[in-house]
Amino acid sequence: MNPLFPRSPQLDGQDVEAKRAELLDYFRATFDRYESLFEVLVGETAYTIKPISLRHPLIFYFGHTATFFVNKFILAGLIEERIDPRLESMFAVGVDEMSWDDLDDARYDWPSVAEVADYRRKVRAMVERVIRDTRFTLPIGWSDPMWAVLMGIEHERIHLETSSVLIRQHALDFVRPHPAWQASAEHGMAPENTLVDIPAGTVSLGRALDDPYYGWDNEYGRHKADVAAFKAARHLVSNQEFRAFVEAGGYADDSLWDEEGKGWKRFARAEHPTFWIPDGKGWKLRLMTAEVPMRWNWPVETNCLEARAFCRWKSRESGLPVRLPTEDEWHRLYDHAGLSDVPHNAPAGANLHLDHGASSCPVDRFAHGELFDVVGNVWQWCETPTYPFDGFAVHPIYDDFTTPTFDDRHNIIKGGSWIATGNESRHASRYAFRRHFFQHAGFRYVVTDTPVTNPASAYETDALLSQYAEFHYGDEIFGVPNFPKALADIAIDAHKRLGNRSFERALDLGCATGRASFELARAFKRVVGIDFSARFIQAGVKLAESGSLRYTLPDEGELVSYHERRLDELGLADTAGRVEFWQGDACNLKDIHTGFDLILAANLIDRLYSPRRFLRDVAHRLNPGGLLILASPYTWLEEHTRREEWIGGFKKDGESWTTLDGLKEILTPQFELVQGPQAVPFVIRETRRKHQHTLSELTIWKRRS
Amino acid sequence: MNPLFPRSPQLDGQDVEAKRAELLDYFRATFDRYESLFEVLVGETAYTIKPISLRHPLIFYFGHTATFFVNKFILAGLIEERIDPRLESMFAVGVDEMSWDDLDDARYDWPSVAEVADYRRKVRAMVERVIRDTRFTLPIGWSDPMWAVLMGIEHERIHLETSSVLIRQHALDFVRPHPAWQASAEHGMAPENTLVDIPAGTVSLGRALDDPYYGWDNEYGRHKADVAAFKAARHLVSNQEFRAFVEAGGYADDSLWDEEGKGWKRFARAEHPTFWIPDGKGWKLRLMTAEVPMRWNWPVETNCLEARAFCRWKSRESGLPVRLPTEDEWHRLYDHAGLSDVPHNAPAGANLHLDHGASSCPVDRFAHGELFDVVGNVWQWCETPTYPFDGFAVHPIYDDFTTPTFDDRHNIIKGGSWIATGNESRHASRYAFRRHFFQHAGFRYVVTDTPVTNPASAYETDALLSQYAEFHYGDEIFGVPNFPKALADIAIDAHKRLGNRSFERALDLGCATGRASFELARAFKRVVGIDFSARFIQAGVKLAESGSLRYTLPDEGELVSYHERRLDELGLADTAGRVEFWQGDACNLKDIHTGFDLILAANLIDRLYSPRRFLRDVAHRLNPGGLLILASPYTWLEEHTRREEWIGGFKKDGESWTTLDGLKEILTPQFELVQGPQAVPFVIRETRRKHQHTLSELTIWKRRS
Repeated sequence: MNPLFPRSPQLDGQDVEAKRAELLDYFRATFDRYESLFEVLVGETAYTIKPISLRHPLIFYFGHTATFFVNKFILAGLIEERIDPRLESMFAVGVDEMSWDDLDDARYDWPSVAEVADYRRKVRAMVERVIRDTRFTLPIGWSDPMWAVLMGIEHERIHLETSSVLIRQHALDFVRPHPAWQASAEHGMAPENTLVDIPAGTVSLGRALDDPYYGWDNEYGRHKADVAAFKAARHLVSNQEFRAFVEAGGYADDSLWDEEGKGWKRFARAEHPTFWIPDGKGWKLRLMTAEVPMRWNWPVETNCLEARAFCRWKSRESGLPVRLPTEDEWHRLYDHAGLSDVPHNAPAGANLHLDHGASSCPVDRFAHGELFDVVGNVWQWCETPTYPFDGFAVHPIYDDFTTPTFDDRHNIIKGGSWIATGNESRHASRYAFRRHFFQHAGFRYVVTDTPVTNPASAYETDALLSQYAEFHYGDEIFGVPNFPKALADIAIDAHKRLGNRSFERALDLGCATGRASFELARAFKRVVGIDFSARFIQAGVKLAESGSLRYTLPDEGELVSYHERRLDELGLADTAGRVEFWQGDACNLKDIHTGFDLILAANLIDRLYSPRRFLRDVAHRLNPGGLLILASPYTWLEEHTRREEWIGGFKKDGESWTTLDGLKEILTPQFELVQGPQAVPFVIRETRRKHQHTLSELTIWKRRS
Repeated sequence: MNPLFPRSPQLDGQDVEAKRAELLDYFRATFDRYESLFEVLVGETAYTIKPISLRHPLIFYFGHTATFFVNKFILAGLIEERIDPRLESMFAVGVDEMSWDDLDDARYDWPSVAEVADYRRKVRAMVERVIRDTRFTLPIGWSDPMWAVLMGIEHERIHLETSSVLIRQHALDFVRPHPAWQASAEHGMAPENTLVDIPAGTVSLGRALDDPYYGWDNEYGRHKADVAAFKAARHLVSNQEFRAFVEAGGYADDSLWDEEGKGWKRFARAEHPTFWIPDGKGWKLRLMTAEVPMRWNWPVETNCLEARAFCRWKSRESGLPVRLPTEDEWHRLYDHAGLSDVPHNAPAGANLHLDHGASSCPVDRFAHGELFDVVGNVWQWCETPTYPFDGFAVHPIYDDFTTPTFDDRHNIIKGGSWIATGNESRHASRYAFRRHFFQHAGFRYVVTDTPVTNPASAYETDALLSQYAEFHYGDEIFGVPNFPKALADIAIDAHKRLGNRSFERALDLGCATGRASFELARAFKRVVGIDFSARFIQAGVKLAESGSLRYTLPDEGELVSYHERRLDELGLADTAGRVEFWQGDACNLKDIHTGFDLILAANLIDRLYSPRRFLRDVAHRLNPGGLLILASPYTWLEEHTRREEWIGGFKKDGESWTTLDGLKEILTPQFELVQGPQAVPFVIRETRRKHQHTLSELTIWKRRS
């Protein structure tokens, strides 16, 4: 038997030099194995013709994994000079994330294979030198420069798999058998698939930053969920089981496909699984380097859209609620099966990590408790689009590993395939692909009435909303205290001294993304936040419901940074239950919004179409003795408030008439000015270097009893 | 003889109660006299029909001077409550500044004369109470509340005169003779006008804030000028002298009129002076309450446009360079005549201050040295549009007394008329009217080859330019040091330590309004400031030439504040001679701009259409060893720089590529980075409360030798 392909190293321990040797071995084995994969290609053209239109030709991937080491090492400070700027510019950016309707027309003047091989030699020498010479301590943490070494190796292992898929998609003329890449010969008829009862349980996903294995950004953080009982197919869906769908006309029956699926079908003219080759009246199966008679008891390989269509068909045929599992349900399977990750010094108990040949194998070969192939053989599509766990943060030298996939268009695959190695083979890993992409991936269906609810994945990129979220929940700048918190502090203090002393209900009018609402709820039993903008309110709702909010901020030009803000980190976790958010128009509030002990209107009046109407109306919404807290920079603009609706900021009867004059005139019949005017500063970040810095004039008005 | 109409009180002295009594007397005499003027009107309709379309009817002016007391007293804190808000809103704003093509169509529901008279009684009682009860000390200064009392009285004296003009323009049916308003009966043929030599001399205008007489804002500050020798007409131009112009067809001859004059002529259908009444083949003269046979030896009354046309005609006829005097030349006449202001306890030696009846008098009645009527009789139009003296500031409770007239459309009148009293009669006063307006005003011509150069009057109101002027020369905000000064300090310091040690020539590229250019000129012998915007450069040029710059800034809504900045107050007076400003394109500079020891480019590169072209070109403009100082917040925007021209702020080959990366790439062949990056903050004021607060990244590059 061949030696085991090395596993991801543990990153803790006592012996730095032993770890150095292990890293060197891990690197060399990976770099070697990657190059051996390309040995299945025949001739230069095999490298430069694209196997599929959506991705680069293989020459790119041959160079890319080497360039990746160079790029990340520069960012990590491990090296200072590039090895070959021209090649590195060419090999830097892949096109893995392309849509089928977003073809890449760029032309490249690709270098020769020999040139790239020579380049790889130089990179290999450089990486070995770095591993040998860099001083480090254990454990290797995610901020350490040596993390970039692991990142480069694990990155190459990903491309080991994805390149093997591309090779499998290449014309047969371009490939040849290779002793290091021999497919399994074991095949036969598939077992009848049956359902296994999976009891309800709790799953706990996400790992700590000090976990002693390398991980990608999306694996860190916390996610816990209760999973209802469900039934799961004992086996992955085999080619044989899938044949019934094909023969029943599943590919032609649009009613089985969602819109996205129909769109892909049209583009791809798909009539059967992509690796099935029509052969007279039967089928052959395309493997990496050969076409073979159909392996009916091997798992079928599909994209997510085909898997979903199969589930719909299966539901119709069986009358059962059949669908793909969620990521959480897959973890219940893993826990139910009592599995653990591939051992370091023994073959995997699954078709995983290249331990059992270079292809799939029968779906009944590896039993995992009552189930088979919970891990290994082929990846398993989940119904769950990838999303960040609570506490997600991007890695500083690879901020676009996952974030571009937080778009509800990339679904998670779990379990790993026969060629999933290193981090890929670990059950904590979370890879995701566009739903129309092919990997060595198939699926297992589940039967359950529990609907799928997908966690929100998107980083808020709406520029104004993100700006406000940062304004409310983000970092202090120029030493200016958080504005909504400062206002709430002033409001609560004033209410104690000057108000009606009832802390029942407060209103945060013009609440935007809601920070002051949460802050007021530290003192008030109930806080209503109202804003004209439904999308601003959604941020508050999301915080109240999930406790966190994610958004990107512009740094410089197109560069952005990623931010997560959490109520618990602001000491506001327990306020969420006392806050409610409503969409509403401050100039035309619903009648129900009344009986408040305090009303805060921050940076609101100069954004209203009729501030006068709001100010005339507000008194009857306050309980007698209640406080109205106004804060505004009085930035009157025609775009928000027609000139004739301004309440100040102009000459009136020849004299300067300030907004404060206008407030006094309008409010005095029903209010007494009890505090202010006083200036409260705020800062709004526009880019990493550019900010708005404004003084809001605060006045506190007590409703006459 | 009647008692003298009281003169403007001196505002210093030792005896507060005596001053209080004098103020009370000054107020009562003014208020009485104003009311007595309206006694010449016959019937209610005389009050409500407009004498001329460009101004309110007289009922407005009857109430207006009273309301003015109320408004200014409120602003000064002398009173808290209005007397009659409805009337006061109606009487607040006059239309004195209207253009003939800008008619007022507002309709007013004017109150009855009795109602206004009653209102005036209440205001009179209030003002007397304020004068009696307000505690004050001597001298009364311009920031003291009691200043508002003087302001109200002097304001009413202005309207005493302007209302007398309106009455003179009213239909004869609406007026009647009045014993207190009797015109002079003295008249005859005018003397032949001759020229008097006025030797060259220096005039010094403007007074100090502690001058012991009340003054309007425009009288304060400093203006000094050398006046070349000139000849002046001995007499004001009489109706008789003007008749030659009329009879020569001067009104019909467009070649004698400028564009403005022709426009006014068309509107007014003017064929002779406005107070001349055609009478068969001769002329009568309209006085305030009567038409009388033409007074040929009284001064003609014209607007400025007619006076200019006369001078053009007179030039043509005489072959001499005839024109109106400038304000400075008028002061030479005053000094040459050895005059002083109207004495407190004796009649004026001029037809001034109502001391010699209620009309003009012959132009040879009051000799002033070799001249006649240097002051008094009628106001004298000057060629000079009104403008602020150096050090001009608006009065806090009357910021629009003069500023709206700084528009080069209002010309100064000097000398006072028979009804110019109080401040109006003082030679330091500076009234100005639109050139087409009528007052009791005529003119004296001068003969001189010296061209008229008018001081710049306008407050810069271009919002962006004013914002930059304040950014460069204005107040520090949030404790952030002045940005261009800070950059210049850093540049000079770096140049001493790291540069070529030559302080010959520096370039301030993207100099905007030029502050850094002046600051660099503290150390460099020659500084060239270049900006793409010609209007920005004009600000620098103006500062270099005149030492000062004036602009308005938005405060709140439409309210603005007025600002003057001076090189001398910034310690930069002596740098002006070492600075020159050019319009230029940093991406395409003229060849002559070379041989610099230091180049500063502050907040420039992210505003260029091709920053790369600029950066590639800049080295050969620097002497070897010279420094290039870059500062920028790297705020890349498509509106300034097309995306493909950005030098950073995007992903390049998959990795974040900052502007600093781009700078290093472009500059490294010719430069060495010797200092920075370091953040230099700046604040730009948008309104009184709203600011941009930005960090500019500064780097210093030394040109390789």
